[in-house]
Order: sequence, then C-alpha cells, then structure tokens
Amino acid sequence: MKQIAILGFGTVGGGVADILADSADLIAASVGEPLALKKVLDLRDFPGNRFESLLTKNFEDILDDPDIAIVVECLGGKTFAYDYTKRLLATGKSVITSNKDLVAAYGAELLELAYQNKAHYLFEASVGGGIPIIRPLTHDLKANRIQEIYGILNGTTNYILTGMTDKGSTFEDTLRDAQQLGYAEANPASDVDGKDTANKVSILASLAFGKHVYPTAIPTEGIRSISDEDISLALSKGYHIKLIGRTTLNDDGSVYSYVAPHLVGENNMLSGVNGVFNGIVVRGDQVGDVMFYGRGAGKYPTASAVVADVIDCAKTIDQPQPPLWVDGAAISEGSEQESRWYVRAGETCNASVFGAFDMISASAFITKSMNQHDFIRALDIFKKTNTVVNALRILD
Amino acid sequence: MKQIAILGFGTVGGGVADILADSADLIAASVGEPLALKKVLDLRDFPGNRFESLLTKNFEDILDDPDIAIVVECLGGKTFAYDYTKRLLATGKSVITSNKDLVAAYGAELLELAYQNKAHYLFEASVGGGIPIIRPLTHDLKANRIQEIYGILNGTTNYILTGMTDKGSTFEDTLRDAQQLGYAEANPASDVDGKDTANKVSILASLAFGKHVYPTAIPTEGIRSISDEDISLALSKGYHIKLIGRTTLNDDGSVYSYVAPHLVGENNMLSGVNGVFNGIVVRGDQVGDVMFYGRGAGKYPTASAVVADVIDCAKTIDQPQPPLWVDGAAISEGSEQESRWYVRAGETCNASVFGAFDMISASAFITKSMNQHDFIRALDIFKKTNTVVNALRILD
Repeated sequence: MKQIAILGFGTVGGGVADILADSADLIAASVGEPLALKKVLDLRDFPGNRFESLLTKNFEDILDDPDIAIVVECLGGKTFAYDYTKRLLATGKSVITSNKDLVAAYGAELLELAYQNKAHYLFEASVGGGIPIIRPLTHDLKANRIQEIYGILNGTTNYILTGMTDKGSTFEDTLRDAQQLGYAEANPASDVDGKDTANKVSILASLAFGKHVYPTAIPTEGIRSISDEDISLALSKGYHIKLIGRTTLNDDGSVYSYVAPHLVGENNMLSGVNGVFNGIVVRGDQVGDVMFYGRGAGKYPTASAVVADVIDCAKTIDQPQPPLWVDGAAISEGSEQESRWYVRAGETCNASVFGAFDMISASAFITKSMNQHDFIRALDIFKKTNTVVNALRILD
Repeated sequence: MKQIAILGFGTVGGGVADILADSADLIAASVGEPLALKKVLDLRDFPGNRFESLLTKNFEDILDDPDIAIVVECLGGKTFAYDYTKRLLATGKSVITSNKDLVAAYGAELLELAYQNKAHYLFEASVGGGIPIIRPLTHDLKANRIQEIYGILNGTTNYILTGMTDKGSTFEDTLRDAQQLGYAEANPASDVDGKDTANKVSILASLAFGKHVYPTAIPTEGIRSISDEDISLALSKGYHIKLIGRTTLNDDGSVYSYVAPHLVGENNMLSGVNGVFNGIVVRGDQVGDVMFYGRGAGKYPTASAVVADVIDCAKTIDQPQPPLWVDGAAISEGSEQESRWYVRAGETCNASVFGAFDMISASAFITKSMNQHDFIRALDIFKKTNTVVNALRILD
C-alpha cells in the first residue's frame, strides 16, 4: 500500500483528499493496490473535518516519513512550494502538482532534479484543469512533430468576454458580476492581465518543443483594453473576442509564444468555447488539428487530474522518465508571423497605409494578412496621424 | 533495437511505414532506442515502392520471426485479421491495430489472450482516427467514474449531413458528391447505416464501463431517412442534425448504448463539429464534460495514432496490463432514458397525445421531455391516425 501526503488543504488539496477517500475502490483497482492518504500539511485548523486526524503544521513530518512515496503539492505560489518541492524530490519522493506558476518558472530544474533522484514530477492539472492535455501531448501525439498550440486557457477571462458579448456590457460591470459569482478573484490581475494564461503557454510550449520557454519570454497582453465597442464591432463581422495563448515552432527551431486577445472567426471551434470553459488546439504534422475542451478549473475537475497523476505515478513509480524538457529554448520575436489585424482608432481614420483593408466603422478596420514586422511598421506610421485604441490579431 | 512488422500495406499500413521511417529520430528519442520496420505483409506487389524489400506474402515469415516483437495489424475485417491476431498474441507478440470491427467483435477475448501471453493489444487508432481518446479514457480520466460518452464518430455521415445543411441538398445528391470526392466509399453502407459508429460505441462503452458491450447489443439507426425537409425544419429551430453514438451507465450498473441521428442544439459543442471532423464528449463524475475533437480518419492522422501505440508498447513491453474489459455487460433497453423528440408526420397532424409540444410545421413538432417508454407508447397511438416519417431525439 503506497502512502500519500498533500501539501495545502485548500480547494484543490481538499478535492484530492475527497477523491482519494471516496473513490478508493476505483483507484485501488486501477493501481493494483490501495493508496492511503497519510498526512495533510496546512497551517490552518479544520476542526471537525473528516481528515482532521491527518493534519500537520510541520513539513518535516512529511519530508522525513519514509512511508510517504508520493506528495501532492497544492500550496500554489513559488516560495514554499518551490522549497518544499526541491527538498521532497531530493529525497526521492515523487511530487504531483497543479501549481502552474511553479512549473512555468522552474520546470526544467525540477524535472531534472526528479530524474536525478529517480522520482516523478507530474503536473497534468496545471493546464486546463481536468481536461486531459499534458499526457495526450507526451503520449498520444508522440508520433507527431508539434507545430503549434493555441487556445482559451483561462476561464475567468473567457467568462468575462462571453458576458460582455452576450449582454453588451462593459468590462468593469462584467468583472464585478464575475467577482460576485466567484468566477473572478477580488484581485483579478493574474487572470485579466493574462499572466495565468502565459504560465500555461509556458508549460505547453516547453512540453511541445522540449526546451523551457519561460513566462518572461512570452509577451503578454490581457483583456482590460477590450471595450463593449470592440466586442460589438467584432460581432458585426462574425467574430468573437477571446483571450488566446499561443506558441508556434519556426522552421529554424525557434519558438514564438504570446498571449493576447484575438478576434476569433465563427468557423474556428474556439469561437464556441464560452463561459468558464477552456479549449486547446494542438497542431501536429501528422494529425492536423485536434482540440481538447472542458472546464479549465474547479475543485473536482482539477483534483481529478491530480489523482490521475497520482495513479500513474503509483503504477510506474520505479520507472522515472527523463526530463520532459530542458533549458535552452531559442525564442523568436515573431516578426514573420502572419495574420490579419483589427484596428480601432480614436477618431475617423484613413487606413490606406495598411494596403488592402476592410473598414467596419468610420474609425475601425480589418487589415489584409501581413506579417507582424510589416504591421507594426504600418501601425507606427498610422499613429502619426491617429490614436490607436486597440490593435488585435484575427484568428479564422 | 525493437523490430516491427505491418500486416496490410493499404492506406493506414502505408502511413505507419512512412511515419516509422520519416520520424525515426523522434521515435527513437521517445522510446529510448530505435525501432526498425522489418517486414510488411501484403498479397499485392508494390514495384518501386521504398518498402518493397520488406514485403512478404507469407504470414509465417512474421509469425515465426523471433526478432519481431510488435506487429501492426492494418488488414481490416474480421477474418484474416482475427486469425492472425490470435496467433501472434499466442506467441507473445504484441499487436497494435486500427481495426475497429475486430476490437468491437472480439476485444474481450483478444485482451485476455494478450494478457495471458504477456503481450499488449492496443487500439488507440480504432476510434477517432488521430484524436487521442483511448489513452485519455484509460489514464487521464482514471480518477473519474465515467457516466456517459457520446459523439460524432463517423466523418462520412457528418460530411453528408453538413453538406445537406449548408447546401439544402438531398441525401442522395450529397452522398454522390461525397463519393466523388473520396469522402464516402462506393458501398457506403457501413458508414451511412451507422455500423461504423456502432463499432466505435462498442469500444468506448466497453472501455468506459469495463464490460464488453457488443455491437449486436447496440440499436443502430443510420442517416438514410434524413431528408432535406428534416434538416430545414430542424434549422428553423436552431438545431443541426448529427449522427450520434451514445452510451450511458445506469444506476443499476446496466449500460444503454445506441446510434441514431439527433437534433443537436446550438449551445452543444457538437453542433459546431462539421464536415469530416469528429467530436467525442466524455462525462465523468468529477470532471464534468470534456470533449475531444479532430479529424476522425485519414491516412496520417490514423497512422500517427498507431505509431503512438507502437511507441507506448515498445517503452512498456515488459509490463503487460490486465485486460481493459471483460465479458459480462448488463445491457439496458433504455426505456428510462429521457429526451425531447422531433417527430415529422406524413400529413397535417394533431400531436395532443404527446402532451405539451411545440408544432414547427403543420406536420412536424417537438415533444416535451419524456422517457423512451412513454414516448414509444404515445408514438404507437399517434401512428393509428398518422404516418410517421421520422422520429429523432433532441440533444441540447
């Protein structure tokens, strides 16, 4: 019987404890032996909780317990989580996490540390909540060279953009609604400024291309600039505005990644991904486009992905895998990336500097397809006589 | 270096040979050692083909070759494929297949035979072509009790229904177009009568619920009865007609599976799955709904899924898994299954026997939600005074 510990008894950690207890039969059948939750680390008290007897406030109780083989890290953040994860892996304990900040910041180091100590470091739950994406990328699509991954990776921003689209309301009003309903946090910066999406892009890019793409190398734009006017101008041409995280492999082996709002065309499956749902498109050289869709967050969806990793880890505990990625990614600035663009100016404008274009109001237009370098050059000229309120890529 | 053989040098078998050769570096890096294609069985000659020197017409050349550890079966059908697969597994060779007919008909037997002989029997490519679905079900969603799986599982019928919807043309005309473009076979029976979908439902149900659900236990209705009039009546209420395969687990442990055309509502992600694409929705008790989407067929998408299984098999060749399912499923007739229904009569009709309903033309209506038993009872009464042209379930 393998023994498990959980670090952090918050939403996801609590969900993991529940599933380990409530689906113990299913898990034992799958692993071939039962798994037992032995200890849960949290600084808070949980009087009357059914796991109260397992709680400890002392990390060393877990680190020094030779019976604990697998530790689930649900602390979040990069301070204690980083320190504890390193110390656990160094003793040969396997670590499973949903902590996207940590994997995005230190994945290469932690994967190498795990491998050196014959341990596993798994993080299926770090991207897309319960949607299977990490294992499909590392197993099912293994016969493909991945060329591109893009998607709607953050439920909060998608909920806000969907709300603005459906109700025609402003960003501020919709954010306030989302906060009241618990779909956005009191401090929504990490979501609405795109940082959460950038962390997920970092993980997907690193996995797909085998070299660590750090979030600092991912130009990131959030959705605060999107107004109800942008939403309705886009809709008038059949587009939905979505926050997209994207990473592409260039022919020279360099990787271009970014996070930004896009106008998504009606024929793209992502235009139907609404509310708190996530959708992730993977383009492989053999398979073409495949999409994974579901709730990208939530207590039990995320916890079920953590437990799937626990099961996988328990079944293959003696077969640690070489690191999924290492340091040394070549980062591209994306100047060759082609797309059409939506531009909204602060006043009636003349868009002739962009060559062929399609005016959608007196002050807004869609350009022809042009590479980013040429677009930015044209935009700089345009700015000499106009105020640019928004410039967004189009994804058909 | 592990050696591979391929049975059947048709579309998928040829694609597998190409990927094994052209992505040899990628595959070797993934497995940890190179894989070599040693023999290819086909009764035809392929003069000048780059794999010509590997071709044999004699199955025993492969069966008796002790160096061949993994055999890819791309013969199709249930005659030679069944005999050869059994003989290979009996000698302890692992078999990878895309042959849905064979897995649906003999999966329980072949999985048990593989396990007894410490071999693998893998079939990711049998459902959804290159879309990852088998391994996500058996690994990523392992912490979930699967409650239901439904989806668009056949690209040919979806191409025809999408064509009828977009162009307003008849079934016969659209089928002819599809045949000319190579999206439908000269004898389209297996696709348009729903048998191909039923085989895929059989595999998904067996996997999800652990007991073999044979295609003979799956009531199957194809799309020949769908007329352009049905399509346009459905569209007038925002529905797209799609051929859906579906399996659900009842509270008593019995399984209800069927294949039939449905009216799919605009808010269901499947309504956006068009042309030759497939979409598969899995409902788990923890994760809720997740969807997998992509091209459900095609040479390289399907071959890439076969090769992913080859890689997985080569990496874990010494760790055969217990059978994914066994015999003994309890089959339900689905009389408790609830849905609203679309009914079209051959004449102006009165639908009062169905209780609350919504007339959408003088001869067509949508019922309230009712269970199948009650619906069929009402339909029998209705038939005493009316001709029923079509009766289809609604999926919102």
